[in-house]
Amino acid sequence: MPIQLYELFGRDDRRFSPYCWRTRMALEHKGLTYETVPVRFTDKDMIAFSGQERIPVIKDGDTVVSDSWAIAEHLEDNYADAPSLFGGEAGRGLAKFMNVWTDRALHLALIRLVIVDILDHVDPADTDYFTDSRTARFGKSPAEVQTRSESDIKAFGAAISTLRAALDGQNFLSGNAPAYGDYIVFGAFAWARSISEFPLIVKDDTVYAWRDRMLDLYDGMARKAVGYDV
Amino acid sequence: MPIQLYELFGRDDRRFSPYCWRTRMALEHKGLTYETVPVRFTDKDMIAFSGQERIPVIKDGDTVVSDSWAIAEHLEDNYADAPSLFGGEAGRGLAKFMNVWTDRALHLALIRLVIVDILDHVDPADTDYFTDSRTARFGKSPAEVQTRSESDIKAFGAAISTLRAALDGQNFLSGNAPAYGDYIVFGAFAWARSISEFPLIVKDDTVYAWRDRMLDLYDGMARKAVGYDV
Repeated sequence: MPIQLYELFGRDDRRFSPYCWRTRMALEHKGLTYETVPVRFTDKDMIAFSGQERIPVIKDGDTVVSDSWAIAEHLEDNYADAPSLFGGEAGRGLAKFMNVWTDRALHLALIRLVIVDILDHVDPADTDYFTDSRTARFGKSPAEVQTRSESDIKAFGAAISTLRAALDGQNFLSGNAPAYGDYIVFGAFAWARSISEFPLIVKDDTVYAWRDRMLDLYDGMARKAVGYDV
Repeated sequence: MPIQLYELFGRDDRRFSPYCWRTRMALEHKGLTYETVPVRFTDKDMIAFSGQERIPVIKDGDTVVSDSWAIAEHLEDNYADAPSLFGGEAGRGLAKFMNVWTDRALHLALIRLVIVDILDHVDPADTDYFTDSRTARFGKSPAEVQTRSESDIKAFGAAISTLRAALDGQNFLSGNAPAYGDYIVFGAFAWARSISEFPLIVKDDTVYAWRDRMLDLYDGMARKAVGYDV
């Protein structure tokens, strides 16, 4: 039986969770057979079997794993003969740092630029949930957050410039071939692309070229997903 | 002939360049025989043979390499049978990201808290050079930079909290054993320790415990270096 990935979806079947994208790319990297089970923010009953309320969740035979990092470790350890997600223990350790940096620096800078766009693309059943939970988190409404102020654009630019410098001399953040460190960061761009037309990166940017390479992976899986061609 | 490491020094033979610390730890990690050649900021003639003006520089037989990242790659590629600094290509790729993040986020947050302390510990011959070059870089004097304002302390705390989260569940940033990713970050702490009594991290912090493990490595090499016990 294929692995089941419980994955967030929005309008037009957009798959917009950056964390689910990490898992999706990891499953592709490992060459595993999987199917996705679309879940709304408010479909918490659908993943209650996992003992918590957040996606992604995978069912791998009798094993249930939640949290994208734990899922990556599960896949690495249980499918050790398939291509490695981490390339060894040092790579795993440093991917953990990338995971933390992306969750904090990159996502925080990004969400301020696209939070209204997310709201406009969640499933109608999730509109109130998303508005209320994010208003509580930011202390103001999505429309008040997404002003695309000079300082917000500059903060996102700083995160991009860190990635740009890391890509100097290598095609992927993990070196010459993509691995989990790339999928962590790519999740942010796959998320943005699925719900926003805002041009986060320009065509002559190293980061844009890297993102293009990521969109091409696995028979263009991410490029074929519903989203905007920006 | 041992490898020669041209390394910045200050008063009381303090070795305070974070970049030189990266190289020093890498040489220890590889188990290589080396000797250090102390250099002041203003001793640019001493490293003119390297074709540039910044330390660290190593002389390894007839080979001269400058820039700490290039030196790490040189050591990894030329001493492939010694313990690996990167643990493979993915680890090397992600260590590059750590290098960039440390240079930008961590060092920038740190220097604002200790720049006067650095000035107080440079060799007397370097005082004017350091004052002038840093005043030009920051657009204000060291004393005007090092105010330890609430926002500067908060910015440093944010960098530390990223490291703390990355260390959750692992003893080193590179996983269960130290590697170059750890040396990159440790360079910042070895630098601070050599010139400042300001308590950057508290004893019950995960990051403090990690720094302690780093100070213990290689027969306590870094702990024995001239510095403050903070």
